[in-house]
Amino acid sequence: MELKEAIAKLKENQRIRSAYYHAMGVMYYDIETAAPKNAIGGFSETMATLSEITYKLAVNEENFAVLDLLSAHADELDEITRREVEEAQKGLKLLRSIPIEEYVEFQRIQSEASSVWHEAKVKSDYPMFEPHLRKLVEYTRKFAAYAAPEQDPYDYWLNEFEEGFTQDVLDGYFEKIKAALVPLIHRIGEKQPPEDGFLKKHYPAWKQRKLSDYLMEVMGINRDDCAIGETEHPFTTGFNKHDLRITTHYYEDALASSMYSVIHEGGHATYEMGNSDELIGSPLFGGASCGMHESQSRFYENIIGRSRAFVELVFPKIKEMFPEEMEGVTAEDFYKAVNRAEPSLIRTEADELTYSMHVLIRYEIEKKLIHGELDTKDVPAEWNRLYKEYLGVDVPNDKEGCLQDSHWSGGSFGYFPSYSLGSAYGAQILAHMKKELDIDALVRAGELGKVTDWLREHIHKYGMIKKPKELIRLCCGEDFDPQYYIDYLTDKFSELYGL
Amino acid sequence: MELKEAIAKLKENQRIRSAYYHAMGVMYYDIETAAPKNAIGGFSETMATLSEITYKLAVNEENFAVLDLLSAHADELDEITRREVEEAQKGLKLLRSIPIEEYVEFQRIQSEASSVWHEAKVKSDYPMFEPHLRKLVEYTRKFAAYAAPEQDPYDYWLNEFEEGFTQDVLDGYFEKIKAALVPLIHRIGEKQPPEDGFLKKHYPAWKQRKLSDYLMEVMGINRDDCAIGETEHPFTTGFNKHDLRITTHYYEDALASSMYSVIHEGGHATYEMGNSDELIGSPLFGGASCGMHESQSRFYENIIGRSRAFVELVFPKIKEMFPEEMEGVTAEDFYKAVNRAEPSLIRTEADELTYSMHVLIRYEIEKKLIHGELDTKDVPAEWNRLYKEYLGVDVPNDKEGCLQDSHWSGGSFGYFPSYSLGSAYGAQILAHMKKELDIDALVRAGELGKVTDWLREHIHKYGMIKKPKELIRLCCGEDFDPQYYIDYLTDKFSELYGL
Repeated sequence: MELKEAIAKLKENQRIRSAYYHAMGVMYYDIETAAPKNAIGGFSETMATLSEITYKLAVNEENFAVLDLLSAHADELDEITRREVEEAQKGLKLLRSIPIEEYVEFQRIQSEASSVWHEAKVKSDYPMFEPHLRKLVEYTRKFAAYAAPEQDPYDYWLNEFEEGFTQDVLDGYFEKIKAALVPLIHRIGEKQPPEDGFLKKHYPAWKQRKLSDYLMEVMGINRDDCAIGETEHPFTTGFNKHDLRITTHYYEDALASSMYSVIHEGGHATYEMGNSDELIGSPLFGGASCGMHESQSRFYENIIGRSRAFVELVFPKIKEMFPEEMEGVTAEDFYKAVNRAEPSLIRTEADELTYSMHVLIRYEIEKKLIHGELDTKDVPAEWNRLYKEYLGVDVPNDKEGCLQDSHWSGGSFGYFPSYSLGSAYGAQILAHMKKELDIDALVRAGELGKVTDWLREHIHKYGMIKKPKELIRLCCGEDFDPQYYIDYLTDKFSELYGL
Repeated sequence: MELKEAIAKLKENQRIRSAYYHAMGVMYYDIETAAPKNAIGGFSETMATLSEITYKLAVNEENFAVLDLLSAHADELDEITRREVEEAQKGLKLLRSIPIEEYVEFQRIQSEASSVWHEAKVKSDYPMFEPHLRKLVEYTRKFAAYAAPEQDPYDYWLNEFEEGFTQDVLDGYFEKIKAALVPLIHRIGEKQPPEDGFLKKHYPAWKQRKLSDYLMEVMGINRDDCAIGETEHPFTTGFNKHDLRITTHYYEDALASSMYSVIHEGGHATYEMGNSDELIGSPLFGGASCGMHESQSRFYENIIGRSRAFVELVFPKIKEMFPEEMEGVTAEDFYKAVNRAEPSLIRTEADELTYSMHVLIRYEIEKKLIHGELDTKDVPAEWNRLYKEYLGVDVPNDKEGCLQDSHWSGGSFGYFPSYSLGSAYGAQILAHMKKELDIDALVRAGELGKVTDWLREHIHKYGMIKKPKELIRLCCGEDFDPQYYIDYLTDKFSELYGL
């Protein structure tokens, strides 16, 4: 095969693959936002059939030959094609190294575990889920050994989710933030929390929908490129830079919930909308990594959205829409209420300050599980012990404890750290953006577009062309450094709580 | 190939095909109801790629061999498999007979015509569209000659859409209804129309959404099997009997519009939800024909939904939801208002009485076009002449005249009659249902479920197993007879207008 022919085959395979992924992505968006409840049976069958077809498109000797030839000539390829090959090889590394029967068996175990987890969570019955978790941990370890026999198995998985961030980096990262944040959290716990009762009045969904439209407008998101769907657990999905979908959930007794989920998901959408045009139709469309994607959503949600400047910008509109509910409330009251920090049980509902402690707990447990230093039977006890130690809270049951997240039931170990890294990236990016932009002044003036332009130029346009470590270096002129995150949280919450 | 092997191949091909159709169906639903405006580019590319793949799945020598072998052994197959083979052969008849280059060329012409038609309609510029229509007519004639050289070309296409209903049946049908309805329409035109101003007050969309939920409940539609989406031009789509999607459009100054579109689309959904379980995963899932599908939607919309009994059932709820707007309005006023009959310009907005005249006009024009008896240049003049003659209205421009429907621009000739046949089937079905059920009493008591049970047993459960002619015979014990339709309309509107 000639190099030129191999490139053509790669691009054609990518074109076909992107059509399948697009269709399957729309089906997923649909089942989460629009489909009737009983659609799930037909949905699962169709997704299984299409997954099998896309699997075969990737996992076949011809494709391997194309990729191997292109890898061997990597330095003759343009940057995008080279990264496409690299990502395709990375995606296939595991599949090419494990016996197919074990892969099929793992999928069966995963799907069973996922369904048992749903039931076990409802019943708060950890022993019901435990044997499934045990098998998943075994497979996770075994697969890492197939794919990268020379590597520590947890490092292998961490690197799969956030390239370059293995335990040597993360141990230091978490030690540092733990040392700084645990005492800060304890000090704040002694203070009187700000009043936030007005956020819990009755806010009809149809009015909240109008607030979402307003927030999207403030963020400068072109609605012809981005729709809002409604679902139980908000997420964002994008099919190309002109077709993004964010989702939210309207709780009529919790105004801030959907408000900040819209800004968060709007951040994810903004990232993909800002991908360079070169990435149209390329599998490199999207974000550099889970952590980098999360850095952008959390940047808009917390760093911008929960800033005093942003609250001052949008509060008049909120007051206009809900005059009775906001009677006697000032922008400053609102600012304090949406920044109320409090150790709690549920990660997805945690505030900006305590969030990374939830992640740290999961990191420590995963690490021990994969290294065989913690038996799956002992997960609840360890979980509860760590929540007490780091957050000072007592876990009343496993439903609100170690059964709360779906990740492990889906066989994902090593994913959690990226959530925390996202916040840390954001703080470092902020520090460097501040050298060039007066962010507060821009936000107060409603000129978020200028902030987005900066992010587009330094982060968004690259899609997956650059890896996260490289992107931080490009954007900030230095390596990743968690000190920015610690300083950001310490300054913000010390001021808020008058420490 | 053994018969058993051929059956297995057929079923496997159907399984794969249904996964693609499901995914493409969801993408279509999504683009019409949820996607942002600029999603259309990516949507079109993905649909083109997937269409090409499904085309190749069907149009290949191996599949032809499977189908030909099964056709040759048709009497050894069970009824469902036999009909599956028959439908597959019917679907491939044209594709197997035309040169592939002409098929590709036709698709190009069709897509161009469709896009020009959109623009021409907005500009009300028929001459802009005319050359495209000319080509489409030529291809329609040519393709019929390839597929069925022995048959009249218009008969070929009519039979494609509504099997068994060729010109010999339809000429008689339309002559009969024209003779009865044109004088009736003229007599009603001389009467004072009922007051319907209260339907045009302000009805907020969020309240109309609640009314839709109520109407679905009254119809006995399980919402876990059926979602409601919102779109410009309402339609229904179904992926399996537990996943139906109806759509509607809320006009805030036209209460009856969305109300009756929900009932109409709910009728389509009810049909597919009532398919027998044997049809799960079969391409025979759905309705016997376009006309039969339309018969069910119009049965619920007009025969049930616009009956006095139904209005009396739902009016208290409407009054409760809109007390100010319905001040001084009685159920009888509402009944008369939603049955206001008036010759008009737009088919899709026509009332129950005049609807078939719109169809008749299109039938006469299509027939002449395909037979070369009318030049495409003369369509507007002929259109306007017939609207004057049958409906007594003057057509002010082509946008509201011969450019109003999309069908011809998509290359569909022979489709329109099924709309009218649907109404006629419904009236005949009603007459036979009445022998067994006291429909008015059931509807007044809110027991629409009994009506649906009857239809499921006589129509819905068969899906596409039976053809429309056969189904009428099975259901009514006699051949199709338009007299029922004439009698139904004459009785209903004579009473309403005091003739």
